[in-house]
Amino acid sequence: MTPRDPRRSTIRLGPGPEFDLIRSLLEDAPEAIEGVSVGPGDDAAVLEVEGSVVLSSDLAIEGVHFRREWLTLPEIGYRAVAAAMSDLAAMAARPVGVLVSLALPGAEAAESGPAIQEGIREACGLCGAALLGGDVTASPGPLVLDIMVVGSVERPITRCGARPGDELWVTGVLGGAAGAVTTWKAGGDPGPALRSAYACPVSRIAEARWLADEADVTAMIDLSDGLAGDAGHMAAASGVGMVIEETLIPRHAGLTSDLAMTLALTGGEDYELCVSVPGGRLGPFAGDFEDRFGVRLTRVGHVVRGDGVSLLRPGSTSPEPLDGSGFNHFEVR
Amino acid sequence: MTPRDPRRSTIRLGPGPEFDLIRSLLEDAPEAIEGVSVGPGDDAAVLEVEGSVVLSSDLAIEGVHFRREWLTLPEIGYRAVAAAMSDLAAMAARPVGVLVSLALPGAEAAESGPAIQEGIREACGLCGAALLGGDVTASPGPLVLDIMVVGSVERPITRCGARPGDELWVTGVLGGAAGAVTTWKAGGDPGPALRSAYACPVSRIAEARWLADEADVTAMIDLSDGLAGDAGHMAAASGVGMVIEETLIPRHAGLTSDLAMTLALTGGEDYELCVSVPGGRLGPFAGDFEDRFGVRLTRVGHVVRGDGVSLLRPGSTSPEPLDGSGFNHFEVR
Repeated sequence: MTPRDPRRSTIRLGPGPEFDLIRSLLEDAPEAIEGVSVGPGDDAAVLEVEGSVVLSSDLAIEGVHFRREWLTLPEIGYRAVAAAMSDLAAMAARPVGVLVSLALPGAEAAESGPAIQEGIREACGLCGAALLGGDVTASPGPLVLDIMVVGSVERPITRCGARPGDELWVTGVLGGAAGAVTTWKAGGDPGPALRSAYACPVSRIAEARWLADEADVTAMIDLSDGLAGDAGHMAAASGVGMVIEETLIPRHAGLTSDLAMTLALTGGEDYELCVSVPGGRLGPFAGDFEDRFGVRLTRVGHVVRGDGVSLLRPGSTSPEPLDGSGFNHFEVR
Repeated sequence: MTPRDPRRSTIRLGPGPEFDLIRSLLEDAPEAIEGVSVGPGDDAAVLEVEGSVVLSSDLAIEGVHFRREWLTLPEIGYRAVAAAMSDLAAMAARPVGVLVSLALPGAEAAESGPAIQEGIREACGLCGAALLGGDVTASPGPLVLDIMVVGSVERPITRCGARPGDELWVTGVLGGAAGAVTTWKAGGDPGPALRSAYACPVSRIAEARWLADEADVTAMIDLSDGLAGDAGHMAAASGVGMVIEETLIPRHAGLTSDLAMTLALTGGEDYELCVSVPGGRLGPFAGDFEDRFGVRLTRVGHVVRGDGVSLLRPGSTSPEPLDGSGFNHFEVR
């Protein structure tokens, strides 16, 4: 018999030349990857990990997280990996590897599979993660990607350590991804800057490790649900309240509509970081951070006793509780 | 604001009471799990793993891997986890934990989410794996489960070590799962025994570790694609040939049709183990194995120089090369 894909069968594929292309991209994987003692092709991957093992998974579903009209196929792959990697960043972890599960509409798998994997490989390469295996199957439904990321860390930063008196800082600028989606949904063209914020997020791996090492970060989260929602997660996990000052929020320069502040505050999927640090600790080093990474670092508020997230509006001295929530992962786009 | 699901947000859920049920099942997770330093609820899970880390992922898609008419919702969850765990068994690994990604048709998520998770928890409990987190999203498409399993191992058994002169053994009986699917597709009722082989496979975790520890196993694979296909994977990975003796193949007792041998040889998803062991090594202990685990252990062939898989038919002395392949993961059911 001619065995099917013998060396690569953690990537499960049916027979037939139309899937050789999908498969071939995994065969480019280097034979020896540091720390990977069994790579793609056996029943499971085997890794030697120093320190603690960090794991997260993230679904990207056509019609929920993206539409084909908005992204190229490589961007669909890239974005799914970057979003999952952002969870490793949020723990201050180093990426080690990625397992990729792809459910491909069968009729177009020969085209879409390799194109998506091109973007997956690019995103993995950017953060030094090895492609470890996964599962590929035809599906009668929409395109589904599930990305499982593995990292290592000596001292994970959780959401739980924020203390009253801490400052709240964010990396980058906010609202761009939501601005692109809002524009597309209104029938418009978001233009390259907003589009790029949505299509090509950069997971803040190195930035997170710098913050953890240099700035006595007490808690960290990545902004996948929007600043209001994610600060709320951090507040609840830490048993504190958060005050965000509206005028401080760094908005994406491409946001010109009246919705800009709402998008910056509640728009999801910016994949920036939000950290709490002891008062006065980070300010002197913010310039160093921006020089080093070319990414803004902005104080947006502070941590208080109490619970929930409040917004201090311009001219007011009394923060108003926010009742908004962030990105709705159950909204079908 | 009322933060959404602050402690559990590696399980991403939109707001709304209809998803509280899905979420609540994860909140039953014990607060402290041995080896889990950060459990569900932060950006990622953090584990302390002794030995090497073993990782695999497995998709289960409605219409491809199962139909709703064939399985209850808990069985859908159970089966997806058991199938993924089987890849850990095949490496002789100990299960540590599971990440679960669920894409749920939105309209029925309040019913299907908790029911599926019930089966997921049962399967995790049976093999001592912790539920570590995952992702839950509404989908406009079919039900999709992606199960990522994490294990640990000191000495992984790969597919690569089979040597000429080794014997080929399998656990359990074969063809039952394929027998159930074949019967359903022909409009029949497979009856409880065949149905159970498909719906409730048992991943051979303990059996694999016994074989690795006691029987000098040279190579191991789990039977997800069928004996012919998976023996072919092992043959190719090891650079050897395999001869399977038809009369030795342990068929599921519920298989009464003329197709029985074909199903036992090429039917997928039995999730039994196939191992190569040095000649004469395992025979004296097969009874011990069966007493200990209540599972058959059967010699089905041997390893030869060459390549591919050949079948020795009754009365013949000349093995015929097999050109059949196993379960087609691209066939939509």
